[in-house]
Amino acid sequence: MSFELPIYKEPDFQIPQFLEYPNVTVQLVEKHGVAPERFHATTIFPEYYKINGKWVLLTQSRMDCVVVVRENEYLEAKELRRLQVGDKVVVGRSEDGSEGIYIHTKGFGNDSTTSETFAFRTGRSRETSYSRDYDRLYELLQFEKDNGYIVWVLGPSVVFDSDSKKAMISLIENGYVHAILAGNALATHDLEGAVLKTALGQDIYTQESIPDGHYHHLDIINRARGFESLKDFIHVRNIDDSVICACVQNMIPVVLAGSIRDDGPLPEVIADAYTAQDAMRQHTKKATTVLCLATQLHSIATGNMTPAYQVVNDIVRPVSIFSVDISEFAVNKLRDRGTLQVTSIVTNIQDFLVNLHRNLAGDKISRV
Amino acid sequence: MSFELPIYKEPDFQIPQFLEYPNVTVQLVEKHGVAPERFHATTIFPEYYKINGKWVLLTQSRMDCVVVVRENEYLEAKELRRLQVGDKVVVGRSEDGSEGIYIHTKGFGNDSTTSETFAFRTGRSRETSYSRDYDRLYELLQFEKDNGYIVWVLGPSVVFDSDSKKAMISLIENGYVHAILAGNALATHDLEGAVLKTALGQDIYTQESIPDGHYHHLDIINRARGFESLKDFIHVRNIDDSVICACVQNMIPVVLAGSIRDDGPLPEVIADAYTAQDAMRQHTKKATTVLCLATQLHSIATGNMTPAYQVVNDIVRPVSIFSVDISEFAVNKLRDRGTLQVTSIVTNIQDFLVNLHRNLAGDKISRV
Amino acid sequence: MSFELPIYKEPDFQIPQFLEYPNVTVQLVEKHGVAPERFHATTIFPEYYKINGKWVLLTQSRMDCVVVVRENEYLEAKELRRLQVGDKVVVGRSEDGSEGIYIHTKGFGNDSTTSETFAFRTGRSRETSYSRDYDRLYELLQFEKDNGYIVWVLGPSVVFDSDSKKAMISLIENGYVHAILAGNALATHDLEGAVLKTALGQDIYTQESIPDGHYHHLDIINRARGFESLKDFIHVRNIDDSVICACVQNMIPVVLAGSIRDDGPLPEVIADAYTAQDAMRQHTKKATTVLCLATQLHSIATGNMTPAYQVVNDIVRPVSIFSVDISEFAVNKLRDRGTLQVTSIVTNIQDFLVNLHRNLAGDKISRV
Amino acid sequence: MSFELPIYKEPDFQIPQFLEYPNVTVQLVEKHGVAPERFHATTIFPEYYKINGKWVLLTQSRMDCVVVVRENEYLEAKELRRLQVGDKVVVGRSEDGSEGIYIHTKGFGNDSTTSETFAFRTGRSRETSYSRDYDRLYELLQFEKDNGYIVWVLGPSVVFDSDSKKAMISLIENGYVHAILAGNALATHDLEGAVLKTALGQDIYTQESIPDGHYHHLDIINRARGFESLKDFIHVRNIDDSVICACVQNMIPVVLAGSIRDDGPLPEVIADAYTAQDAMRQHTKKATTVLCLATQLHSIATGNMTPAYQVVNDIVRPVSIFSVDISEFAVNKLRDRGTLQVTSIVTNIQDFLVNLHRNLAGDKISRV
Repeated sequence: MSFELPIYKEPDFQIPQFLEYPNVTVQLVEKHGVAPERFHATTIFPEYYKINGKWVLLTQSRMDCVVVVRENEYLEAKELRRLQVGDKVVVGRSEDGSEGIYIHTKGFGNDSTTSETFAFRTGRSRETSYSRDYDRLYELLQFEKDNGYIVWVLGPSVVFDSDSKKAMISLIENGYVHAILAGNALATHDLEGAVLKTALGQDIYTQESIPDGHYHHLDIINRARGFESLKDFIHVRNIDDSVICACVQNMIPVVLAGSIRDDGPLPEVIADAYTAQDAMRQHTKKATTVLCLATQLHSIATGNMTPAYQVVNDIVRPVSIFSVDISEFAVNKLRDRGTLQVTSIVTNIQDFLVNLHRNLAGDKISRV
Repeated sequence: MSFELPIYKEPDFQIPQFLEYPNVTVQLVEKHGVAPERFHATTIFPEYYKINGKWVLLTQSRMDCVVVVRENEYLEAKELRRLQVGDKVVVGRSEDGSEGIYIHTKGFGNDSTTSETFAFRTGRSRETSYSRDYDRLYELLQFEKDNGYIVWVLGPSVVFDSDSKKAMISLIENGYVHAILAGNALATHDLEGAVLKTALGQDIYTQESIPDGHYHHLDIINRARGFESLKDFIHVRNIDDSVICACVQNMIPVVLAGSIRDDGPLPEVIADAYTAQDAMRQHTKKATTVLCLATQLHSIATGNMTPAYQVVNDIVRPVSIFSVDISEFAVNKLRDRGTLQVTSIVTNIQDFLVNLHRNLAGDKISRV
Repeated sequence: MSFELPIYKEPDFQIPQFLEYPNVTVQLVEKHGVAPERFHATTIFPEYYKINGKWVLLTQSRMDCVVVVRENEYLEAKELRRLQVGDKVVVGRSEDGSEGIYIHTKGFGNDSTTSETFAFRTGRSRETSYSRDYDRLYELLQFEKDNGYIVWVLGPSVVFDSDSKKAMISLIENGYVHAILAGNALATHDLEGAVLKTALGQDIYTQESIPDGHYHHLDIINRARGFESLKDFIHVRNIDDSVICACVQNMIPVVLAGSIRDDGPLPEVIADAYTAQDAMRQHTKKATTVLCLATQLHSIATGNMTPAYQVVNDIVRPVSIFSVDISEFAVNKLRDRGTLQVTSIVTNIQDFLVNLHRNLAGDKISRV
Repeated sequence: MSFELPIYKEPDFQIPQFLEYPNVTVQLVEKHGVAPERFHATTIFPEYYKINGKWVLLTQSRMDCVVVVRENEYLEAKELRRLQVGDKVVVGRSEDGSEGIYIHTKGFGNDSTTSETFAFRTGRSRETSYSRDYDRLYELLQFEKDNGYIVWVLGPSVVFDSDSKKAMISLIENGYVHAILAGNALATHDLEGAVLKTALGQDIYTQESIPDGHYHHLDIINRARGFESLKDFIHVRNIDDSVICACVQNMIPVVLAGSIRDDGPLPEVIADAYTAQDAMRQHTKKATTVLCLATQLHSIATGNMTPAYQVVNDIVRPVSIFSVDISEFAVNKLRDRGTLQVTSIVTNIQDFLVNLHRNLAGDKISRV
């Protein structure tokens, strides 16, 4: 069985009430970065806006934005902070079309949920059966490799372990990665491992703490800071065998968002949180599958800016988010914020990555 | 690199102080199940007792027992509850030999721990690198398959997932399992899965909740209760494709200890907690490797009764315990009780079992 | 605002279909401990059975039992293992009355759940606001003290800390405890603390590890084993300042269920898991409020045998279960098994108990 | 018993080897933000540098910085990114004085750790006894209120609950708070609660989800963005009953660091991660006690920049860090990074704050 895109069912805008509903109301932005009262805020679902009598689908959406009507009936989902004086912002808070705004929650069918009076095990936890989720994910990624845009959101523990690091590199080399969103720590410990075989001073295979190992990440950062870019650092210093190196070699974009936890930072790390959001959203705007591994900060940030659907070649298709973490709290946090299309898997991401490598790249992880 | 047993270094009992130290003192048990005051309690380490001028190694130990001197200088580690009137119990609480009791903590060498003033990441957690632990475990199990006694302690989530269940069955069929310690729930949901494809009413592959699924485990239990043994139930009802079935077919002993959480129970489940302890200890007495998966109750119970060493063919060898659970608290709990030889792996046991299957049995898990 | 019992609304059995529905069908038990096929299994909800044309409410229920029709239209919810040859067991698996079995899920009204398309934070976690739950619990316990039956289910960590232990003792002395369900460890470490000021060898106030502290629990157990009962041990040895002592002094029943983790055990610990279930159910049969603190084993066992309702003075009233644990997984586990009336609070039970003490007993915890 | 500062014991620099050791070696920074190879990196401990034959204590330290020798033998701990061309950076990686660098790990005495061969319960977890930690914390805060500088690091869940929010406000009003470090979410949900009684749309007392509640935080942010500062917003809109309001009224500085998760952001939130670090460090430079509640990001960031000691009125005193979180992993994470002076408490911060309020402010939390 291989993956097939679910069919999207458009709302039937020919039924009378939709014909009668008014066009959206807009109000002008009067102060930079401030929306008019009663602005409409976006959800994760497909949303249609009635403009000049036509119902127009919002594309490249993200939740908690306001909708600005631009020239030629083009709609843009804008964060509050990006609003410009004069922007025409959609106002109205009903979702049924009666104010020209329609939120379409069932475009990809309805989740069939049993409604027995008495049932066990309704949540997802460490005890959920994940076999089918893995199988579906393998099929999905094989499809997306050529037909979609796969965004990975990586916490530093991806590179704390030798095998999971190799697995991640292999997935990049085999075409399963179209963009990586991460932070300073991921890149630092990745390069630390490449140069010194450690992460935070601990050997990523033998687990041994190396004497003066607490200098390792600082030395890597300091050396890299001598260069304009990680690419230059890698080339000049001849570094290999790392996630960042694999991205450089395969021209996979990496967005490194800075945070207050950072040492350094490395070159290319984006200091401004909102500039970083903009850079991340360049990828979530295109994302058709997102995998979030072991990072609450970056996962929630990415989840916030990923819509439930994407328009690819004029076809509306769903976006799949996989949230993988060892903590139920962490994986459920995404759902709790309204990110309903998330498949959460409760496990150690080391095993998750090795599973993906074995099933997609097919070969054993080599031990040097 | 394949597994080699570490060499055990006996204490040098020829050094003068050991020659001078007295024989152990014993006192008689006066009331069934009650030890004399100042009884010596066993640890997990190899312990030597001076009897008739000779230092005798305690074998088949377990911690928190008292030591009874039997005929012919034979020593038995007995739980308080098994003490008989007249038993000769060793008394004394020094550990250095001065009371004829010597606890040998460094027989297998000393853990080399770095002693820098400033080091990161000293504990074991979700962020520990587990690649080497896996590699060592694979080598160890290949050795133990023919040279040791591998005891598995299984929580019910082993059979909540289709792939992990298949992996466990494959490990049994390939000789990596010499005994299983578990409870009523493991066996119930295992057989539920075999007969009805569910666990607690939820399909173990598709995750669907089946109508009236909350009857599934009760029906399985009720049907099995019509038989004297699980073996009979399995044979008469022609049940296959389950952990318990694989044990029956391969004549692997299974100890099912009852608990207050149980429905039923199934036939063969041992109602009395201490009778169950005795049955479990028949296996831990021989165990050379113990794998504890996703059950706090049974893991701690087993950890308590597993010594750090075993005497096999007159050679003292270490016992390895692996504790695998998604919760740091659970895996660390074993260590906290003094079970120091534990390798803890923080992950979902579904992935752990699939890893073992792939690396030891070599083949892919088939999807029917 | 003080606590008021919610009004129970009986089903209207005068509506025609209920009048037409048949009496229940029963089948005889042919083998001890085995139910007829298609036996009806109980839920946690009020259930009515049509006997001789009358709809009879099942009382003293517990889930996953079979229903036996006794003399005089009396119904008994029996565990499979307690079935006797000749017992008349209700068969039928519909719940709407059409087989003479009616499960009444909405007797206490319907949970009003919002049904917006887009909402945050639907689960209960560490981030749930618990102020109101505490306030309601204080009011409930003040009511139950005189009008109900409050069962406490205690894990050993209740007595690992000095203040929480004092708080628990104070709640007993102030009348808020009608029965305690626990295990060997709770009683052992409670008495260890009373005699030696430690739990597992660690001072329960200063946290210091005491030399030879690993003997403490064994010494307490061994000494207690010299007596027929904990009461005798406490009286003869003049022990005070403990949860068990407070129960003895206030004649509060304590059920100690044995488990395979136990050292000893202490006198009075029930070795047989199912005998222990029977002893526990003597209390859950009467329970109107149940508080489960920091023990998965005993909490789930108790949850399984606690119905959602109780008949007190011919009035049907709800049973409240509070599940308090630091792990979302643990508190949600009860819900997942169908125990829907649970209020889960995610916190450390030390703080929970101190809160209850301060709000119910009113005074500061004294520091000696 | 009330709090007394531990006495700091200076190294004895009169012993011959210290007299013989050389002055530190420095090298000049040649490129902005890049240290010379073999730069010395700071730890959390007091460090002395030999300058012109004198051993000079580094003040206002933070770990993982480089040390710059300024005029008049003044030493500055600088982050890599703040290095200026020409800065004189100390090089050398020995810690014993032999390169003019001495790390003094035992200035406040040695932790006495038991060294028995066999001991239980060495870590800190949900089962640790916290009574004494609370008592010490109460005494410490009463001392620090007048003699120290208490920095609070707050996660948003502080304001998700009505009682914990009131408790926090009360602690501010009673003088126990000298600075707050937090993020956009804390301030947003705090003000949302003040204006609309909710956090993320859920009533912070009744837990009810309010219709259109997902607009609440966006509306608050949007309204606040119309003002230059939170102070203006609060004054003009007449907002009260919130943590931020209490800070404004009591002139307590609040640093709000931006992150990629943010909506908005609110005015005053610092977008640049490293500018935010600088602003935070203005407070950790003075901090004598730090309390980190339920935020991994801000806690680790703050932990990284808080030294183990402070010089107050020429006296070297220790800095106490309390890390409070419901997850063992989170509280242990600080220790794992080398922040050894941390007291970790595993509980829900709602209860923690209510405890502090009751013991320090003395009164009951009022219910309106």
